[in-house]
Amino acid sequence: MADTTAAQRRPSGTEAPAAAPLTNVRAQRVRSVAGLGRRSVRAREGLFLVEGPQAVREALAWRPDVVREVFADPAGRERHADILQAAAQAGVPVRDTSADVLRVMCDTNTPQGLLAVCRPVDVALADVLTGDGGEGEGRPRLLVVLTNVRDPGNAGTVIRGADAAGADAVLVGTDSVDVYNPKVVRSAVGSHFHLPIVLGLDVPALLERLRAEGIRTLAADGSGDAGLFETDLTRPHAWVMGNEAWGLPSQLLEACDEAVAVPLYGHAESLNLAMAATVCLYASARAQH
Amino acid sequence: MADTTAAQRRPSGTEAPAAAPLTNVRAQRVRSVAGLGRRSVRAREGLFLVEGPQAVREALAWRPDVVREVFADPAGRERHADILQAAAQAGVPVRDTSADVLRVMCDTNTPQGLLAVCRPVDVALADVLTGDGGEGEGRPRLLVVLTNVRDPGNAGTVIRGADAAGADAVLVGTDSVDVYNPKVVRSAVGSHFHLPIVLGLDVPALLERLRAEGIRTLAADGSGDAGLFETDLTRPHAWVMGNEAWGLPSQLLEACDEAVAVPLYGHAESLNLAMAATVCLYASARAQH
Repeated sequence: MADTTAAQRRPSGTEAPAAAPLTNVRAQRVRSVAGLGRRSVRAREGLFLVEGPQAVREALAWRPDVVREVFADPAGRERHADILQAAAQAGVPVRDTSADVLRVMCDTNTPQGLLAVCRPVDVALADVLTGDGGEGEGRPRLLVVLTNVRDPGNAGTVIRGADAAGADAVLVGTDSVDVYNPKVVRSAVGSHFHLPIVLGLDVPALLERLRAEGIRTLAADGSGDAGLFETDLTRPHAWVMGNEAWGLPSQLLEACDEAVAVPLYGHAESLNLAMAATVCLYASARAQH
Repeated sequence: MADTTAAQRRPSGTEAPAAAPLTNVRAQRVRSVAGLGRRSVRAREGLFLVEGPQAVREALAWRPDVVREVFADPAGRERHADILQAAAQAGVPVRDTSADVLRVMCDTNTPQGLLAVCRPVDVALADVLTGDGGEGEGRPRLLVVLTNVRDPGNAGTVIRGADAAGADAVLVGTDSVDVYNPKVVRSAVGSHFHLPIVLGLDVPALLERLRAEGIRTLAADGSGDAGLFETDLTRPHAWVMGNEAWGLPSQLLEACDEAVAVPLYGHAESLNLAMAATVCLYASARAQH
């Protein structure tokens, strides 16, 4: 084990000696990484934080080209040798840190030993609509639109659910939480690197565009006329998910082709946004597979 | 508005003058309510906290018999006159507090103006199995078993999802988070008062008991042999949900009748526990309705 670790600290083929571990929580380097917890700094630097082993592993496996640097504390180095090896193979620098430094860099108090700094992964809408944004499998059949979604945990969980259900992309309106917020990234556990995400969309214009492309727009809305399990989900469509508390504004509801309600069989007044999205997306996946 | 408020402060038919608002955050009364955030205090006092207007409304609507007291700060009193009226009608005392006092009493920093202190609502397993624990609709067809579920938000969201999907009860093993934890109650948003919850169950014995009752036990497990959408969900069954990180121990997996996987159509490694439970429960509800 000690040998393996030593080998990883100075991978063969790397000429330069490994940089000294970061141990000073007040160092400029540490503070500048920690600053990426703030939206303004992310926008200025064009970088975001990816915390925890599973998300870092997915970043390196699927999009090593956007991973700029990985930070590992002693526990992370010991437990996740495979991930650090993947970083080395991808030519991504790994910097050792103390546990305190990693905690200061991360947005969470329990960073689980690993952190990556990545460049944005979002793509253009046109690439999604022509099927160039993902794996080149052609035109999209299942999309999710987020508008006025404000809670980072919800947004991240919807991205993860969209990934699990095999959606072709997540389309995010200008009015929603920043998908590079560390809490969104944590909740999505690597799904940012699995499926295309489009940002900064004007939602009314997007709905028109989707219709022009032959993609039905389905508003997920508790008061919708159509029941989820009675709706035809075999054709290409986009689920439009609104704000956690007040749903979709009437203007957007009317702009959608149909308003679809998840049935409530018991006495709960509603499902939370992420649950509703996941139930809708899985109904779609089931119909399309 | 001022008249209405005055009337509510001294509801007609109430002889005693209203108690003075609680304004001292260090008062013994305030600290004893705040103490209910701790499991040991809840167990000793036989009481738990219900925070926020929606959950308090559901408590008063469905189980006014267990609501011992409601606390309202000025914003809560102004915004939720209907809920305070429901409390008055149910004979539940309402005590005014300052915003600071309500914040100290609550587990959350954003209590949204209302807090109720309630007696436990859990029922006996026998009542659920004979159909006496809920609304007397007969023997259960859809149940959820939680074992080793540790995250309060996940547990509460599963309870809410079980309610929405019309499950007959939630059965909780001794090894799971306390369902009266304020975070569980917040995430369930009133569902504690909608469907029966059974606590303190020995899970291996429970699985045997369910089988004896003719209820199939389905382990929700990513490595399960059966696919969710290929499984017969029309007959009575119980979903068995394990720990967030490591799922179900092999001993319990083997004790279940079947291990069922939620299909992953994209590249996500898994769904989180609450999402997986909701997708499973909705597949069941769809099959049974």
